[in-house]
Amino acid sequence: MVGKGHERMNLFTPGPVDMSREAQQAIGRPGLCHHRSEPFRRMMSKLTTLLQAAFLTRGEVVILTSSGTGAMEAAVANLFSSGDKVLVPVSGKFSLRWAEICEAYGVNTARIEIAPGKAPEPDDVVSALEADPAICAVLLTHCETSTGSLTDLEAICRAIHDLELLRSREILIIADCITSLCVDVLRVDDWGIDCAVAASQKGLLSPPGLAFVSLGDRALKRVRTAESPRYYFDFRKYLHTEIPFTPAIPLVSATLASLSHLAGLGPEPVWRANRSGALAIKLLIQAAGMRPVAERQASGVVAFWTGDLDAAEIAHSLEREHGITVAQGQGGLKGRILRVSPIGKGPGALLGFAAAFSSVLEKMSREVDMSSIETELNRLLEDCSIWE
Amino acid sequence: MVGKGHERMNLFTPGPVDMSREAQQAIGRPGLCHHRSEPFRRMMSKLTTLLQAAFLTRGEVVILTSSGTGAMEAAVANLFSSGDKVLVPVSGKFSLRWAEICEAYGVNTARIEIAPGKAPEPDDVVSALEADPAICAVLLTHCETSTGSLTDLEAICRAIHDLELLRSREILIIADCITSLCVDVLRVDDWGIDCAVAASQKGLLSPPGLAFVSLGDRALKRVRTAESPRYYFDFRKYLHTEIPFTPAIPLVSATLASLSHLAGLGPEPVWRANRSGALAIKLLIQAAGMRPVAERQASGVVAFWTGDLDAAEIAHSLEREHGITVAQGQGGLKGRILRVSPIGKGPGALLGFAAAFSSVLEKMSREVDMSSIETELNRLLEDCSIWE
Repeated sequence: MVGKGHERMNLFTPGPVDMSREAQQAIGRPGLCHHRSEPFRRMMSKLTTLLQAAFLTRGEVVILTSSGTGAMEAAVANLFSSGDKVLVPVSGKFSLRWAEICEAYGVNTARIEIAPGKAPEPDDVVSALEADPAICAVLLTHCETSTGSLTDLEAICRAIHDLELLRSREILIIADCITSLCVDVLRVDDWGIDCAVAASQKGLLSPPGLAFVSLGDRALKRVRTAESPRYYFDFRKYLHTEIPFTPAIPLVSATLASLSHLAGLGPEPVWRANRSGALAIKLLIQAAGMRPVAERQASGVVAFWTGDLDAAEIAHSLEREHGITVAQGQGGLKGRILRVSPIGKGPGALLGFAAAFSSVLEKMSREVDMSSIETELNRLLEDCSIWE
Repeated sequence: MVGKGHERMNLFTPGPVDMSREAQQAIGRPGLCHHRSEPFRRMMSKLTTLLQAAFLTRGEVVILTSSGTGAMEAAVANLFSSGDKVLVPVSGKFSLRWAEICEAYGVNTARIEIAPGKAPEPDDVVSALEADPAICAVLLTHCETSTGSLTDLEAICRAIHDLELLRSREILIIADCITSLCVDVLRVDDWGIDCAVAASQKGLLSPPGLAFVSLGDRALKRVRTAESPRYYFDFRKYLHTEIPFTPAIPLVSATLASLSHLAGLGPEPVWRANRSGALAIKLLIQAAGMRPVAERQASGVVAFWTGDLDAAEIAHSLEREHGITVAQGQGGLKGRILRVSPIGKGPGALLGFAAAFSSVLEKMSREVDMSSIETELNRLLEDCSIWE
């Protein structure tokens, strides 16, 4: 356990992350605010406005009670019909999920296979789109949470929009921003993302259980015509009407409180704090002689090869001896990598992690040369002080 | 506000209802238990066991992060393929929902139309099944929450099973038990219900956001072969494997705490307390010269005609002057009925409601003759003392 006083900061996993103080206080408040009451309607409306500001969109935002995956499925079911053709660059477990969901809905899915740790490049995407004029959408993953790889969404969106102009095609852009909203720079409208998906338990420092979908005009047009079966996730039930189904009320309170606080801090300081936290962790693992998995590092999670040291043993020691939870690798990466998230972690929590990590590695006869990184680390940690 | 000390008991709506003390304490506990940790796996396993006991089934139980409607859709998507034919008795908003979901999935849906306040009878169901040998399932609603009408599930299940024997047919029985689990007598295995659906925010006295689906052997067989598109709600991902998607962790803690407490009380006392609470409310509204909507009263909610008094005005006065929330009618019943739930309410809360209701009606020049019901009311309230 690291952090100050009663605030246990022990989840260094890339979702859920430790809740903000604001989320924690709100979720513990006694009683439930009925979802058909005026006070709750005002809460939902305020949360929607804050989410629009967080996505940087003037489009609609739908709030769902589900995990982020539910919102990914909702996007597919509301935007496509069986037989539509889409493009999915696959570079890990979470981008693969887009392909799996599309395939479950009978959507014809062209994949670009990308090595773990690498991200799709604008040229790859454009070539695949040029090769098949039937493709009507690209489904992207901003932060591939299995490797910590950040996709250059802005550059890919620009390349797709250029192609749209050149070929008079409409190509919808859908992005999984579950680990990037309020973590990495994201500008939904400026970049021209038609539909972005996010969830409560990452950058929003809130408990898991809520998911969010932004919808621009082109996406809204498709929502009205898509023929995939859907009911609970049918966006038409959520737009411009009464809340259709009983939402997870305490999670709405918690997320609203947390996001209000983040909005007060402002987007740039929040992005910078998470970026600097990620760079601090990267610095630390490099000082331990380990290297990151991602070529282009996302701020939401640093995945790193543990080399000749056993990843599971490091994770278990961190948990057992220091009460710190980190994530292991998934699928083929299990036992070979660890994944550590800096989301919402202030200098105290990060230094606590550094001390615990060094101590665990020392017992495995690996020295972490902290003195060599001290100056740079302290400079990075300054940016993270917004969390304390 | 009625009730003792800090425990505000003000939600007399048929979901969400006020949380139990146990749920409230659990949800406010600081920190999150990571969903891939052993302690959380144990919590999920314990919750599953308690839900099996609550449903009275040895079948599987799937835990979803969604509202009850999500679980209804999950049942349809996992059990049917487009073109299958099913029977839905429709007697209100929630039984209509079964039909709407089936139709959204291209399932051929025969409806039995039933007047509001009435429940489907075994003979109606059997006649409809006899008339169409292609029907492979019946979707029922145990408590129709829009009218407070209780379906005689046991009798209908028996009639269907007799027909199955007589005609060598397999007819799946699916039941919406969202407002009846831990409220009205329900015996999933004894009655031969293949799939029952429930949610956290009613009889379980827990916050909304979790939903549950029981699956017997025949249902499990269909889960393996049904062809409807599904991903987040795909039961195959939940059975016998790691938790597939990040669950709403604080809601799992709260529901586990609350259901553990209910299990300690035992099913019969819980059923009796809610039943007596419903009868107490029915007695009260009858003493006010009003009559219930349902012929066969469910324990989860008492809906009643407000006659020449304006239902909305009564609801608003209860809210404004006494901090008590009740539900109004939906659709065509709006303004004409009120719906009051006794779920989890002890004698203090119910007497508080009675006093508030009498006071509001008095201001509308309607006398409630409390003395005439005093003896019977007190006897009923004794059963409700398990909640205090």
